Amino acid sequence: MQSEAVSHPNIALIKYWGNRDNELRIPANGSISMTLGGLENRMTVQFDAKFETDTLMINGKSAAPPMLERASRHLDLMRRQAGIDAGARVESVTNIPLGAGIASSAAAYAALTLAAASALGLELDQRALSRIARRGSASAARSIYGGFVELIAGDGDHSSFAKQIVPADHWQIIDLIVLVDEDIKHTGSTSGHALAASSPLQQSRIVDAPRRLKVCLKAILDRDFESLAQIVERDSDMMHAIMMTSEPPLHFWNGDTLQIMAVVRDLRAQGVSVCYTVDAGPNVHCLCLPGSEADALQALTDAGKRPWRVLRGHPGPAARVV
Amino acid sequence: MQSEAVSHPNIALIKYWGNRDNELRIPANGSISMTLGGLENRMTVQFDAKFETDTLMINGKSAAPPMLERASRHLDLMRRQAGIDAGARVESVTNIPLGAGIASSAAAYAALTLAAASALGLELDQRALSRIARRGSASAARSIYGGFVELIAGDGDHSSFAKQIVPADHWQIIDLIVLVDEDIKHTGSTSGHALAASSPLQQSRIVDAPRRLKVCLKAILDRDFESLAQIVERDSDMMHAIMMTSEPPLHFWNGDTLQIMAVVRDLRAQGVSVCYTVDAGPNVHCLCLPGSEADALQALTDAGKRPWRVLRGHPGPAARVV
Repeated sequence: MQSEAVSHPNIALIKYWGNRDNELRIPANGSISMTLGGLENRMTVQFDAKFETDTLMINGKSAAPPMLERASRHLDLMRRQAGIDAGARVESVTNIPLGAGIASSAAAYAALTLAAASALGLELDQRALSRIARRGSASAARSIYGGFVELIAGDGDHSSFAKQIVPADHWQIIDLIVLVDEDIKHTGSTSGHALAASSPLQQSRIVDAPRRLKVCLKAILDRDFESLAQIVERDSDMMHAIMMTSEPPLHFWNGDTLQIMAVVRDLRAQGVSVCYTVDAGPNVHCLCLPGSEADALQALTDAGKRPWRVLRGHPGPAARVV
Repeated sequence: MQSEAVSHPNIALIKYWGNRDNELRIPANGSISMTLGGLENRMTVQFDAKFETDTLMINGKSAAPPMLERASRHLDLMRRQAGIDAGARVESVTNIPLGAGIASSAAAYAALTLAAASALGLELDQRALSRIARRGSASAARSIYGGFVELIAGDGDHSSFAKQIVPADHWQIIDLIVLVDEDIKHTGSTSGHALAASSPLQQSRIVDAPRRLKVCLKAILDRDFESLAQIVERDSDMMHAIMMTSEPPLHFWNGDTLQIMAVVRDLRAQGVSVCYTVDAGPNVHCLCLPGSEADALQALTDAGKRPWRVLRGHPGPAARVV
């Protein structure tokens, strides 16, 4: 009973922040993302009745107890469904910087869901897999699919799932991920989501979400980069507005983050097709059209007082058993 | 018909952003400020039927046409009230950096209102003066009074005025104003206010304003610095959240701003009584108790990669004819 799966992280274009239900991870608002080829998580899961406890290795090292516990709880969902009570040996190998807001948990929980379901012999379609992945990390639901993906918020476990908008070959968008800080962030997304409702601004953000989703969806279908750029930057800034006005406040940006955001806005004003979006960390995703990639990369390189490491993503495929 | 008035800028503890009525400058929400002794505007106004047009000198130089026009429109309000149609020669001398978010227009319009009303022989009490000053710059209404001041938003010209909460000697708060950038800001407050309603988050901010005003008022009356610090930082961050999510977005912070905000939060976690607040520019007001001033100033000096100029304010008196 062993299986291996590969999945990719995703960058949210319209972001999810805050849950309607923290336990079931029912998001407070829908979200849209691009699955990121170029970065991946390769997950091996082996179930065996001989294993007294679950074990979790990440890039060859034993995971910290809270990470193992979270993975075990996720495996329990599938063990219950399969009626199997065996322990699991889990090995995750990834080229994604961990805990720095590069959606490492999205890729991990998509791959874990797929590998475990396969090892347990559960026959589940992508929608069902995305619902289970959501329980581990809501953004993981989106990484079950390739290309451009929407996570329907829904109002309960059955109505809260991801679906593909268009496959990866619909639109070639490059994601230059500028790593200004690779340290583990102070506040993980899971505890951050629980704070969202404490911001006096969150309710307005949720009420406005259907509008942003609609604008983003149309921009993707029309391959309209300028419209995409505007709504993506606005949505990112709105999420950080909620974060920094929650109780306690969460400030993820640093000076480099702000500088890159300003460089990107200036570039676009000069006709370079690039926009920024920032997840729960200081690193900046600079989305650009292939024809603007060289200009964007040059400007970002020139702007840095010290050299920043830049990862490169592009529309990637669905999570898959290998 | 000549008169001279002195007034001080003020730092908003609960900030005003966005108008219910842009023409009458009826603020969308109430605000609370501390009038800042140490910084001042000295305004001389002379009316004479011989003057064919108004003239405005700022620190010895002729003001740019848009500034003169705004001042003239303000003088018209008082000329109409006095039934006098003479031109005015206006001279403003100030030690406040102009247009860098240090409330230079608040001090200017408080002093202009007072000097012009006096020169025209209008007998107006402080409330009436604050209502006129509000038409020039809503924050100017607060600089009519000394100490800690509230601007009641009201719902029309007559109900929108400032009043004193407690005089300057109630509580000694020091304002260390760290000037990270003394350039004129790209977007003035007047045009910024008109954008506030375009942020999808502004409505939530307005609805929450009475709560923030109440918490701040109680903190001032109780001289409770920790409570003041929390609500002042949250309110400042909420205003910038609106600014950066308006259409078009306004980003006033730079890397130094963020760095100082983080230094101040760290200091307070270590027991130093200091908090930050940021107006419509990148410069940071660091409010502290006198016993924490030396520690705060030292930490801010150590943090700067280059030396920042620091202005010092403290609770100051009302605007007055001299």
